[in-house]
Amino acid sequence: MTAGKVWLVGAGPGAPDLLTVRALRLLEHADIVFHDALVDPEIVALASCAERIAVGKRCGRHSTAQRFINKRLIDAAHTHQRVVRLKGGDPMLFGRAQEEIDALLVAGIQVEVVPGVTSALAASADMQRSLTARGISRSVTFVTPRVGAGEDRSNWVRAAVAADTAVIYMASHEAAAIGAALIAHGMAPGTPAAIVEGASLSGQRQVLPVTLATLGAAGARLLGGPALIVVGENFRALAEQAVVPDSATASRRRA
Amino acid sequence: MTAGKVWLVGAGPGAPDLLTVRALRLLEHADIVFHDALVDPEIVALASCAERIAVGKRCGRHSTAQRFINKRLIDAAHTHQRVVRLKGGDPMLFGRAQEEIDALLVAGIQVEVVPGVTSALAASADMQRSLTARGISRSVTFVTPRVGAGEDRSNWVRAAVAADTAVIYMASHEAAAIGAALIAHGMAPGTPAAIVEGASLSGQRQVLPVTLATLGAAGARLLGGPALIVVGENFRALAEQAVVPDSATASRRRA
Repeated sequence: MTAGKVWLVGAGPGAPDLLTVRALRLLEHADIVFHDALVDPEIVALASCAERIAVGKRCGRHSTAQRFINKRLIDAAHTHQRVVRLKGGDPMLFGRAQEEIDALLVAGIQVEVVPGVTSALAASADMQRSLTARGISRSVTFVTPRVGAGEDRSNWVRAAVAADTAVIYMASHEAAAIGAALIAHGMAPGTPAAIVEGASLSGQRQVLPVTLATLGAAGARLLGGPALIVVGENFRALAEQAVVPDSATASRRRA
Repeated sequence: MTAGKVWLVGAGPGAPDLLTVRALRLLEHADIVFHDALVDPEIVALASCAERIAVGKRCGRHSTAQRFINKRLIDAAHTHQRVVRLKGGDPMLFGRAQEEIDALLVAGIQVEVVPGVTSALAASADMQRSLTARGISRSVTFVTPRVGAGEDRSNWVRAAVAADTAVIYMASHEAAAIGAALIAHGMAPGTPAAIVEGASLSGQRQVLPVTLATLGAAGARLLGGPALIVVGENFRALAEQAVVPDSATASRRRA
């Protein structure tokens, strides 16, 4: 039997119908699926004919665990034809995909990446505020303050400050420190920002409009779901709207 | 009759099966679709029951044309129930979505944004090189050098230089100037880069691995399709591979 193939598939931001058509078909025909612990159970369940295995770890801290995941993917490709590695959002952004791709290629396993909708784009859609806007923002930076041991922890701040719009992934639990770091690097304390929780997930979604100076205070209002922070002038209008948690997909605003 | 609703829908990078499931369903049930001129005809054809109207303009230069599009969307919502505005990639990145959203809301029209896979993520998937990578890149910036009259033309360079990885949209025709600008702002001439044409489109796809110093020379090898430029250390490995145009989706590399 020849070795199987591994697809690294983006699960998108959370809503099952924000999967791509290709991702949906791959899940439906997969023999085995290794999914991030935080991928929505409703999405994982779409792989109804597959063995489904949660492989913990979302934040990229544990390199031992990552090596173990790499090994499991290689082993699975020797026993299954269609192996899916399902990752939240897009595989190529903050997903440690490169380590898995390289390990698979070194092992002689065929690999293909299926891109997905990253949560920053779902958050932007939920807010009805674009990430770039004519005359306001022509650049947007996606960063995370989470780094491995020994890496430069201030690098992300410089990248965020230099862009017109910044999106900070995996960081809502340190909102106060992020606001302070951006202000310390020269951004105005009144710069508009928002914390977006549960982007694309009706019923678990909230948008908290803030400024850099009030980012920390908003932390107390978090619900605990996956969240990201957006910063930039194009979010100034959010503060003028009443944006509240709701359960309707169609209309999120109240007068 | 109450006014209809407008969905701003991301068409994704080009391959029809990289539409989201939600986007596909909206196209299938749309009454009228206004699409960017460069959205793949195969995707537009999925709206088989809808009136389909190309609304030129891809690069956001003509504000008169944009106002005309806004007006057509508002008019359509008064005569049709399900109006889809279909944009290449994701609507909220370099798509002038904010102008359309604001015009629709001011006119009292309900609007919803459906995010899509942006072409940077498809390019990354095609290259099998991630945009962020542990120990190499913790930030990625999406920029375009295209700006409106009177806007600062150097702003994008600062944002690109400050990030670990840069993706430059709508810029392959000025590759030489972009390489020179990044070098002038302090990046090493040998910094790895690539031009990715036709991301996700089998048969029209090519990846040209270069450095900042050789970006301009690669311009002569372009096929003329939609393209973007990526810059960063994580693309160094590309130069060591033989990456060539092909027509196979599954495997793009030759030994």
